[in-house]
Amino acid sequence: MDVRTSDADFATFFDPRGVAVVGSMREPGGEALTVVRNMLQFGFRGSICPINPSQSELLGLRVYPALSEAPGSIDLAMLITPPRAVAGLVEQCAQRGIRAVIVGTEGFAERGEDGANLQREIVGLARSRGLRLLGPNTVGLVNTSNGLITVPYTFDYNQIRKGGLAFASQTGFAAAQGQPLEDRGYPISKMCDFGNKCDLNEADLLEYLRHDSETRVITLHMESVAEGPGLRRALQATAASKPVLIFKTGRTVEGARASSSHTGSLATTGRAFDALFKQTRAIRLDSWHEYWEVPKLLASQPLPKGNRIGMVTVTGGVGVAAVDVAVGSGLAVPRLSTRSMDRLTSLGVHFNGNPVDLGPSMVVSQDPLKLTENAIAVVLADPNVDLGLVVLPVGVDRWASATIGVFQRLKPAIDKPLAVFAYGTRVSVTEEVVRQLDGMDVPAYLDLDTAVKALAAAAAYARTPSGGASRRVSGSAR
Amino acid sequence: MDVRTSDADFATFFDPRGVAVVGSMREPGGEALTVVRNMLQFGFRGSICPINPSQSELLGLRVYPALSEAPGSIDLAMLITPPRAVAGLVEQCAQRGIRAVIVGTEGFAERGEDGANLQREIVGLARSRGLRLLGPNTVGLVNTSNGLITVPYTFDYNQIRKGGLAFASQTGFAAAQGQPLEDRGYPISKMCDFGNKCDLNEADLLEYLRHDSETRVITLHMESVAEGPGLRRALQATAASKPVLIFKTGRTVEGARASSSHTGSLATTGRAFDALFKQTRAIRLDSWHEYWEVPKLLASQPLPKGNRIGMVTVTGGVGVAAVDVAVGSGLAVPRLSTRSMDRLTSLGVHFNGNPVDLGPSMVVSQDPLKLTENAIAVVLADPNVDLGLVVLPVGVDRWASATIGVFQRLKPAIDKPLAVFAYGTRVSVTEEVVRQLDGMDVPAYLDLDTAVKALAAAAAYARTPSGGASRRVSGSAR
Repeated sequence: MDVRTSDADFATFFDPRGVAVVGSMREPGGEALTVVRNMLQFGFRGSICPINPSQSELLGLRVYPALSEAPGSIDLAMLITPPRAVAGLVEQCAQRGIRAVIVGTEGFAERGEDGANLQREIVGLARSRGLRLLGPNTVGLVNTSNGLITVPYTFDYNQIRKGGLAFASQTGFAAAQGQPLEDRGYPISKMCDFGNKCDLNEADLLEYLRHDSETRVITLHMESVAEGPGLRRALQATAASKPVLIFKTGRTVEGARASSSHTGSLATTGRAFDALFKQTRAIRLDSWHEYWEVPKLLASQPLPKGNRIGMVTVTGGVGVAAVDVAVGSGLAVPRLSTRSMDRLTSLGVHFNGNPVDLGPSMVVSQDPLKLTENAIAVVLADPNVDLGLVVLPVGVDRWASATIGVFQRLKPAIDKPLAVFAYGTRVSVTEEVVRQLDGMDVPAYLDLDTAVKALAAAAAYARTPSGGASRRVSGSAR
Repeated sequence: MDVRTSDADFATFFDPRGVAVVGSMREPGGEALTVVRNMLQFGFRGSICPINPSQSELLGLRVYPALSEAPGSIDLAMLITPPRAVAGLVEQCAQRGIRAVIVGTEGFAERGEDGANLQREIVGLARSRGLRLLGPNTVGLVNTSNGLITVPYTFDYNQIRKGGLAFASQTGFAAAQGQPLEDRGYPISKMCDFGNKCDLNEADLLEYLRHDSETRVITLHMESVAEGPGLRRALQATAASKPVLIFKTGRTVEGARASSSHTGSLATTGRAFDALFKQTRAIRLDSWHEYWEVPKLLASQPLPKGNRIGMVTVTGGVGVAAVDVAVGSGLAVPRLSTRSMDRLTSLGVHFNGNPVDLGPSMVVSQDPLKLTENAIAVVLADPNVDLGLVVLPVGVDRWASATIGVFQRLKPAIDKPLAVFAYGTRVSVTEEVVRQLDGMDVPAYLDLDTAVKALAAAAAYARTPSGGASRRVSGSAR
């Protein structure tokens, strides 16, 4: 009997009233212990029930010997036990009324035929007992609204900035324990590692995130596709109201082969996948770097009305490279209006084409920051310009903080998407400026190409034809 | 009369006995003052002669009123005066016996017809008087062997790691005042900004660098080509003995148009340029990020005997993406030998394909660092493997420094090119590990794609057919 239920399944996973954690609680590295500690440190708002027959107390929490004895409302179980124990625990979850189970454990389909058999067994059991599985071979979930985190690794931060980005992947690399999420300050709503994707898959998640009011932009990493037609339907429905960005790995035959060895799934090569991008509004990403850096622009910026980029630089050499990347990414480089060119000339700007090159004028300007601010305002107000790129030299000391001020003053008046490429002589200073600009919802980048490609992604999403879809990125599609 | 002389011209520019600096010495921002200060701070070994009629002393140096009165052996002049003063100063240089002149000044061909006329005038004068010009519109040169630096901007470091990388560009963006050269620790021999490239050009520089024993790898940024056949000949000759990497901007028609407005040269679009890559061993770079990050691998690593990449990762999700990038960059992903697979199995490694995924084994290993070290050694010793990629999770505290130890122990035994992609939860810690690995001549990267592409560049250079050329990167071709 297949009792796949409703789109509400993922809601139980992300918003459980209580979580049971089953597995090793031995100091110092027990995986269940680590999950519990992470949940406490991230301030999970629900109840936490550690389950272990040989322990009575853990980090100030009472440990229960079995799921059947755990009290209260438990909606989710995180299992990190040896593979052979999982089926029995799934059965106990069913008996306890727990309908959402994350199988963190490795050693299933990714580990050969025996593991694949075990995996089939737990899937069959879950379906017959009416519960849903995430994994196996996964670090599970993060929900920044309620402090839920199921990651069984120790790492060195305990907060993630709350915001509109949902990230889902098929690898622990993209999870909290591997990424500088606190340092980079990505504004995140939900995170999901699908692992071997034996039951719940990306189509289920898209259905959930489509209705999730916390999520504005969805970013997926995929190696395998659980079910092509289901994914296409989910992408069509979801990407009509929120940008969905996809980084597909295993595009090459060689890559697909490598994929099957670590998730136990058959990866879909690039060609089969390309059709999905044509049939839906989904936007393609090309690297792990883009996976992390492109979404923040779509979440923080209004959608552009067209694809015409206006650029302000202080160095012609970056301007020319920016034009190449822009044109290569599907953006157009318009002439500025005569009015804008006149205004730039009156500001003392010599090279007022597009890109506007402020370099020579700044050298002789009494107030180069004011010149920068005024020039950006002129370019972004130009009727020929739909989106803007600023190439920002980050000085040190007072200049670095003064550049932040430029954008603080500009921000309220700008209603077009903007990206900043920042560079300078001190890595830490440049990174701090980028972090502060990001924090002000001015997406900033440490490399030129990603800044331009993020703008191009916004333009591509805005212009994709989609029956009746709003052209605005909406917080909720309900 | 055209008295273009010999390939020794650039030698005078890079190795002058004394340098005259002509221009504003007004505090705080006078450009000639700044050049002199930078030369003192970088410890220029020759003599420095500030020239200015209204000053007698500068930073402890005597200022001379005119070039004709400056004493000693002066081989190079850096001019940063208003454009209309340049021709007269070029004439004075000729009279003083100075044959090498950098025209830092802006306001020539990049600024319209009047400027173009001025530029033609100084070129004609230089040719008739037998001297060579670099620029105009340039920050000039750096030579790490003798502390020469002509940059007229203030910036916040005063040393550049000495090493085998020569960088030349057509923009001040790529010069010392715009880049974190100290923080990144790129090992540099020479730097050159061509500016408007009115006289000395990339072919001249290649001729010089071909014979420069300090330079092992040459990286060029180009918008325009001064003279196609000359560049082709210089590339053929130079790239036969040292890798030459080229980042060509203004590849698109729109980009070429933007280029002509800031350097006053007609940019060459991509198609015209593609033939150069086919006809020579030059290697193409695709971004400013690659311009800085790819060369260090070619300078520090032996050339590979083939294009077969062996990969060691701790996360399958990065391994699959690495395979995609490798195949897309022209690398092959071989099967490991049976012997290697047996050795990996005996180490306790479960996923011993290629990429070798250590993740699941490390979790249960008593000594995950030793496992990593042994696995890397096995993969790089495999006869099916020509070059290696290591995906390195950078932990914090002891783990971060312990990973450095792994490579310290491995390094002496590895005779194949190796690159590391490092990632972790703390940006500053990961960057420090990258810096330390780079310092040990283990090229390390903060993004996966560039690590793989740098290896691919080495393989491409090694396999390019080139009549009689050595397959080794040689310190000197003399």
